[in-house]
Amino acid sequence: MKRKVTLKQIAKELDVSISTVSKSLRNSHEIGEETRLKVQAFAKLYHYKPNNIALSLKNRKTKTIGIIIPEIVHYFFSTVINGIEHVANENGYSVVICLSDDSFDKEVLNMEMLANGSIDGFIMSLSKETQFKGDFHHITEVISQGMPVVMFDRVTNDILCDKVIIDDQAAAYEAVQSLIDKGKKKIALVTTVDYVSVGKLRTDGYIKALLDNDIPFDENLIIKIENVDTCEITISKLLEDKTIDAIFAVNELFAVTIIKMANKMGLQVPNDVAVIAFTDGIISKYSTPTITTVSQNGKKMGAKAAKILIKRLEADDYNEGEENYVTEVISTHLIERESTN
Amino acid sequence: MKRKVTLKQIAKELDVSISTVSKSLRNSHEIGEETRLKVQAFAKLYHYKPNNIALSLKNRKTKTIGIIIPEIVHYFFSTVINGIEHVANENGYSVVICLSDDSFDKEVLNMEMLANGSIDGFIMSLSKETQFKGDFHHITEVISQGMPVVMFDRVTNDILCDKVIIDDQAAAYEAVQSLIDKGKKKIALVTTVDYVSVGKLRTDGYIKALLDNDIPFDENLIIKIENVDTCEITISKLLEDKTIDAIFAVNELFAVTIIKMANKMGLQVPNDVAVIAFTDGIISKYSTPTITTVSQNGKKMGAKAAKILIKRLEADDYNEGEENYVTEVISTHLIERESTN
Repeated sequence: MKRKVTLKQIAKELDVSISTVSKSLRNSHEIGEETRLKVQAFAKLYHYKPNNIALSLKNRKTKTIGIIIPEIVHYFFSTVINGIEHVANENGYSVVICLSDDSFDKEVLNMEMLANGSIDGFIMSLSKETQFKGDFHHITEVISQGMPVVMFDRVTNDILCDKVIIDDQAAAYEAVQSLIDKGKKKIALVTTVDYVSVGKLRTDGYIKALLDNDIPFDENLIIKIENVDTCEITISKLLEDKTIDAIFAVNELFAVTIIKMANKMGLQVPNDVAVIAFTDGIISKYSTPTITTVSQNGKKMGAKAAKILIKRLEADDYNEGEENYVTEVISTHLIERESTN
Repeated sequence: MKRKVTLKQIAKELDVSISTVSKSLRNSHEIGEETRLKVQAFAKLYHYKPNNIALSLKNRKTKTIGIIIPEIVHYFFSTVINGIEHVANENGYSVVICLSDDSFDKEVLNMEMLANGSIDGFIMSLSKETQFKGDFHHITEVISQGMPVVMFDRVTNDILCDKVIIDDQAAAYEAVQSLIDKGKKKIALVTTVDYVSVGKLRTDGYIKALLDNDIPFDENLIIKIENVDTCEITISKLLEDKTIDAIFAVNELFAVTIIKMANKMGLQVPNDVAVIAFTDGIISKYSTPTITTVSQNGKKMGAKAAKILIKRLEADDYNEGEENYVTEVISTHLIERESTN
């Protein structure tokens, strides 16, 4: 038997995208007939076999859960994995993890690899690029073949499946409200780019809190950081406006950088500028001053996702559940520390 | 076809350890004949099939690398994974990650699962419990069937395979020497328990640096932390000895806790007590004061491990390499920050 040809090799050989190959092999009419037939012919020639998940599901249970996350150097995802592992192991399941590295192609390839008989179901958080492209065919494909998928944190309304999220808008609202309650009047938001779903929701919560408190909303106070390596400069510029008395950061790396830059500029946290961050991370605990955070409860999120997936896997007939997809909302809570007091 | 019985289920059913089941199925003479036969009979009855890696290797290449690491909430392992991913992807390989959670049983089960046709080779760092037990049969088994294993960081001399390490002893020596060069006379070591190989080597380096500089070695200055949750108390006790003028910590969590406790006790870092840590982590960069560290170059370590593994996988005849096992030593370097200046 020859070495199996992969999606990636076909894409490279025919100079088309991985998504095009994947869709052509599913005979999707999104792809022009000529390309479709070319891909199919090539795949046949080189003995490419698309997944046949439904078949493999009937024949065996791997008792393994596949996780796909965007990145690993991110404390939040580590805590989610811990939550998943805990529940999975308790129920006799093993766990394998793949990283999409925030790349659409890697996400597609990882799903392809794992769905090919290695696992019983997926727990996943979308890559930035997948959210940006809005192309979810690889996920709908897996679900339509009968393999359950539970999405967490970075989810999409375009896919019908079980989801575990936090109410990012309400959590952001609560954080901003707590700053307003402390008498803060000019609150900036340091966030990521909008195409990550959670970023958009947190911005909405920020704006809503301001307006509900009759604080005018000023677009210039929303800073979107695209490149972490240059965020020091962006943040310093923001801090030059000395009338800003509080900043809400969507992660702890931004928060700790704000504190660092504020110190350099002779500003005192929290008296001159208060700082609050979204995170379960450990930097916030050890930073000086320690940082007030909105806890995302990653561990709880992971545990819940694993419970939902295992329940589906062990249901007598998976398809019966289709109309009962759940979206679980994990509660967040404010951990008050020195950066806002 | 029935659901496949797992090692874990056999162990539970017969009330023996996973290791005993695994060894019995390999017909190991470490296990008494009665138990061996009982396990084998049970496995046969329930259609358990041990791996047949050599066979699967001949038939297919998965183009996937399996990583087994002790834990994920640890910045060092994240950086190693990034290094592996980078080289793997460049060479057309995918990567799957499993966590042993520092448990011997989980390490055995993960290897069993992945070796069963999902991957072409392993990159792994031993669990604490595996190092403590000194039981490596699951690894020798995989290697003897022709599947290459590259170990990194937490390795063992009891296994012949490729390894990627840092010279922990030399790195610790350099760190302690740098403190002595700054005029420090009474240097404590805050470390983990000895059965993790790297802990032992770092302790050796610490002692050697002291003795080479005619500083008497005092056992009471070596603090071994077993439980991170109570390390604040242990560290506070150490700091009560005001003649200690420097502390070498084997990870950044210990270092940042030392700084926190020192601050609480009115001690000034670095003037009253200097602090240096082993780590590539980010807490050290953002702590106040920032922490001087010995960088472990995790990314480089991962990249090197992936290169070695892929070279083996793509060699015409794997067995030819057996006598050429390499142990690559990745260089470390000191990153001077505020906690020692």
